[in-house]
Formats: sequence, structure tokens, C-alpha cells
Amino acid sequence: MVAALERRMPQESILYLGDTARLPYGTKSAATVTRYTQRNIDFLLARDVKAVIVACNTASALALSRVVPHYHGDAVPLFGVIEPGAAEAVRVSRGHVGIIATESTVRSDAYAAAIRRRAPALTVRSAACPLFVPLVEEGWQDDPITRAVAARYLAPLLTDGLDTLVLGCTHYPLLRPLLREIVGADVVLVDSAVAVADQVAAELGDKGLLGGVEDQTSHFCLTDSNSPFQQLASTILGRDDLSFELVDVS
Amino acid sequence: MVAALERRMPQESILYLGDTARLPYGTKSAATVTRYTQRNIDFLLARDVKAVIVACNTASALALSRVVPHYHGDAVPLFGVIEPGAAEAVRVSRGHVGIIATESTVRSDAYAAAIRRRAPALTVRSAACPLFVPLVEEGWQDDPITRAVAARYLAPLLTDGLDTLVLGCTHYPLLRPLLREIVGADVVLVDSAVAVADQVAAELGDKGLLGGVEDQTSHFCLTDSNSPFQQLASTILGRDDLSFELVDVS
Repeated sequence: MVAALERRMPQESILYLGDTARLPYGTKSAATVTRYTQRNIDFLLARDVKAVIVACNTASALALSRVVPHYHGDAVPLFGVIEPGAAEAVRVSRGHVGIIATESTVRSDAYAAAIRRRAPALTVRSAACPLFVPLVEEGWQDDPITRAVAARYLAPLLTDGLDTLVLGCTHYPLLRPLLREIVGADVVLVDSAVAVADQVAAELGDKGLLGGVEDQTSHFCLTDSNSPFQQLASTILGRDDLSFELVDVS
Repeated sequence: MVAALERRMPQESILYLGDTARLPYGTKSAATVTRYTQRNIDFLLARDVKAVIVACNTASALALSRVVPHYHGDAVPLFGVIEPGAAEAVRVSRGHVGIIATESTVRSDAYAAAIRRRAPALTVRSAACPLFVPLVEEGWQDDPITRAVAARYLAPLLTDGLDTLVLGCTHYPLLRPLLREIVGADVVLVDSAVAVADQVAAELGDKGLLGGVEDQTSHFCLTDSNSPFQQLASTILGRDDLSFELVDVS
């Protein structure tokens, strides 16, 4: 998400909060995820951001609609990743959409509902992939064990002409090469990050909120110091000069 | 742990707190695990327990020595699982001990240090097994994928005459049959729960604190409603009449 935002809005500085002390969110209830999401948003607002993106798919699916009323009236726009991801899937699909996501995101039915609302004729199937995040954090992105897990998770989606697969969790784009092998060359892999960056840029532009920062910086706040996140972030962004700050949002 | 305590002290009622909203602890830093452990202990003390067992191996390894001074002077004794587990490993080992645990427990070196302190001549090797908890929570205890993961994790421990393997995480006893296949019939598998139950019973007896409850009950408090924990607890205890209560310790 940070990479997509940096590319789309090179004039903006990004403040990233990773709630590494309480992750993963993907197995937790809507009540818990909503409580944590609200605290995370409050933390970012207290640092004077001009827009907030709930980049975690689980938090977007379970908490966004619940926290929006709380911030209604605030000047700061709030974005999620489900609607842009669903819109992109509808745009590219020829009939059969698959969604892979955490257990909580799948159970929420948020992606499937957002797609059906836009295109009731599409068939949508979802598969929860709870081992993908720990496998990525173990560093086994290109590994026969991960391939066997992915083949098992994806099998129910591959039965009837899948043409589009939504990568419904921030970690899954790191499995893109392996997922590509399993689904074949003809299936479009949708990562909502690009669609979200486009939406955010458009809305900030409409509101006259786009900035003119000359030296773009991205700053990372984490709630736990001991996380594979730092390594993953460097891998995704392709640089090792990232600045990390340990914070307490509880 | 609950099963071992129930068997060893049938006259005691047990209040169990599972911090399912913030688990897993096994990838987190000592600072975060200590903060959470302290809140969990405060919650149990507020419910008037007469002893507290930090049953999570990661919390015992990272937080116990840090939280003990905080409760020093309280009448309520505080137990961990590392020392009893290490003592049991030393008792049964003929020379080569292996420890499997979470990443944070292994990094803490708590088990190895406790064993070396008692028996400096033993060789001790540790292996972090971060995928075991999610594999167990996925329900894949008896599965070729879990077997492949376990074979990879255990390989470095099997090189020089391993005779004792410490199951250093509450979830791992559920993998006992599969681990037994991999290590063979001659390796002793140590689950600290029984050793802990013996120690707790002895100390409560010494202090005249053993109770005389006629109808033993175990009550489970969870911080998140949506967890495989409830299913796991029923599986481990072999009954489906468990009582669960949703609580907030944050």
C-alpha cells in the first residue's frame, strides 16, 4: 500500500501505523477489530494526518462501517480497501471472481457483497487462507510447503472458470509468483492497493488537499518492536533506509 | 494445563483466562508480552484467585521474572511453566535435550538457561516452530503438510542423539502423535503441564491453601469471542459443556 501511494502521490508524506503488538487481526471478532481500529485511527489523527486509509483488509471489512459514524463530521476523510478492490474485480472480471482473504474477512462477506452490489451476474467464491500470513512471515514465499498449502486453499475456487482472483490481505501480494503458478497465466490477480491509491489521489485532489511536499518521506510506527514487519517492509519497498518508531496505542 | 490441574487437584476450581484478542504472544517482544501478562494477572487477582499460573510458555519465558517484583508481597503465589519443564527434562534426559517453542521463547533462551543451570553437562538445542500454532488452529494436527513442516523444524535437533524433546508451547501437545512419528519411539516428550500441576499442588499444600470444593468447576474467560480456542479447549478436555465468558482486560 505504501509503495502504491508513494508512486501515485509523490508529493505526499506517509505516516504508517502497524499494530504489530496485536496482529494478526484476521482471526479476531468484529468487536475486537473495531476497538483496535478506532484506537489506531485516533493515533493517526492525533498526528495531524489529512486522510486515513484503513489498509488492513480485515479492519476494512469488519470495522470501517462501524467506525465511520464515530468520525462523521471530522474534516479528515477515511478510506478502506474493500470497495476499491471490489470495483477493480468487477472491472476486469469476465464472470467468475475468487476472493482469498483472512478467516474474518471471508466470514464478514464484505468483498463478495461489494461485488454483488455492483455486478449481480458475477459468480463469487471466497476462500479463507489463515496460514498465508504466518507462511509469509516465516519467509517461505517460494517453498514447496507454501505451494501445497496454496493448492489446497485455492482448489475450491478453481472449479468453474475462475478468471479473477482478489488478493484480499496485505500480505498476499508477496505470494503473487506462487499464486500465479497455481491459477495459471489467464487469471487476473487483483491487489486493491493500486485502486485505493487512485481513489485517494482523486478525492484529495477534488477537495484541494493534495500537498506540495518536496522531499517525500514515509515514516513507520509499530506497536511492537519485535516483528518480521520491518524486514517485510524493506522487502516490499525495496530499500533498507526505512525509519521505524515504537509507539503505544493501547 | 487445565486438564493436568483438574487431575492433580480435583478439589480446586479453576479460572482460566485466554487472551485470545491479542494472541499469539510467540512472535512478540518481551516489553509487549510483559505488559499483557501483567494485565492478565491483575484481572485474575481481581477475581480473588489464590494462586496464578502463567501457563503460556512465551509469557513465562519473557515476562515472569519481570512481573514477579511487581507482585512481591502479595499473598498470592505466582507460578510459571519453564522451571518445572526444565526440571523434568533434566530428570529424564540421558544427555541430549531438544526444545521446540515459539520464536520469542527460543530467543529468550529461558528453557536452555534453566536446563544448563541444573545440568551443565547436558547438550541443549532449540528450534523455533512459528507455524505450529496456526497449523493446530487450522485443525491440521494430522496432515502431510504439518508433517513436512515438523520434519523441517526438527531436523537440526535430530542430528546428535536427541533423547528428550520439550514441548515448549501450550499448543504443541496436540501435535504429539505427529511429533512422535518424526522423533521415533525412544525420545521422551516432555509436556510441562504435569510437572507444573505437581509443583502447584505441593506448594499450595505446604501453605495450607488447598481447598475443599466439592463440585470442581473450570471457568474460561476469553478476551475475543471469535477464536478456535473454544473448539480446541473442548478437544483437549474431551467435553463440550465448558463455560466461556467474554472479558476485557485492556
